[in-house]
Amino acid sequence: MTTPIRILGIDPGSRVTGFGVIDLLGRQQTYVASGCIKTPPKAVLSERIAVLFEHITEVIHTYQPTVSAIEQVFVNVNPAATLMLGQARGACVAALVHGKLPVHEYTALQVKQAVVGQGKAAKEQVQHMVVQMLRLNGTPSTDAADALAVAITHALRNHNLAAQIQQGLSVKRGRFTTR
Amino acid sequence: MTTPIRILGIDPGSRVTGFGVIDLLGRQQTYVASGCIKTPPKAVLSERIAVLFEHITEVIHTYQPTVSAIEQVFVNVNPAATLMLGQARGACVAALVHGKLPVHEYTALQVKQAVVGQGKAAKEQVQHMVVQMLRLNGTPSTDAADALAVAITHALRNHNLAAQIQQGLSVKRGRFTTR
Repeated sequence: MTTPIRILGIDPGSRVTGFGVIDLLGRQQTYVASGCIKTPPKAVLSERIAVLFEHITEVIHTYQPTVSAIEQVFVNVNPAATLMLGQARGACVAALVHGKLPVHEYTALQVKQAVVGQGKAAKEQVQHMVVQMLRLNGTPSTDAADALAVAITHALRNHNLAAQIQQGLSVKRGRFTTR
Repeated sequence: MTTPIRILGIDPGSRVTGFGVIDLLGRQQTYVASGCIKTPPKAVLSERIAVLFEHITEVIHTYQPTVSAIEQVFVNVNPAATLMLGQARGACVAALVHGKLPVHEYTALQVKQAVVGQGKAAKEQVQHMVVQMLRLNGTPSTDAADALAVAITHALRNHNLAAQIQQGLSVKRGRFTTR
């Protein structure tokens, strides 16, 4: 019997960071969990980063993913917002590498193309397709849906990953290396 | 006998991050250690963040600081550089909060004013004053000197911190709280 690949998808944000966990067995994707991490808006930077880091670490401990995928953020017109988003994303990646997970990055364009089939899809279309593809009963929040979409993107692009791992890949510093 | 406060100063950068450790006993500052963490320039983001996070965690384990101070980065004209610097800084702060250290932030202006006495000081003046104030035999690299300057800034602004800790402060999510 083959073990499924468990993918943790992250959609980083300075206020709300979405996470989504799916299992991949062959080409079959199964929903495991999803949610949002909200950082206290008036808290100092270290406190916001602590909340993000601790919650992602907790998600990793709870669901034990084998690989992670994170959305590449776009550069904002507001430089201060770009800096803040960068800091949040840096903390997310730090939590992923601390959790010994390989980290894959996908642009919003790649995610939309993989999930909806075209790069200009609206957020609602992404949300709709996530519900369809994972056969969900309810609709996750847009941030959780985006995170699930990132995980699905990784699944669609790497459905032969299970085979690679069985052939003997190990993880070092967020990347796969051959043993 | 009073225990010294051990301050870890960090000067974050996307390529080179400086660190500096000093002891503060009353108003007396003593040099403990300093150095640079260089991230592999051609590596993927997760690898660079892993190097930063792991090295800062190692510095914390080795020198056991009681508090940390990090320089606030300025927003660059290049948005992509701002994003990268933000990610590096986010990883640094994640390592500090993961190491259970309270995190204090100082702007470059505050550091220069505290160490040199004026906000428009050149990097070499900061380096020179760090050597004088800590009575160093050699000259640390500019990145290490900047990190030591951040630690000195915290020392100068908080020389009564030891008294506060003895009165019963504990650390939660990068901030001091009363027990």
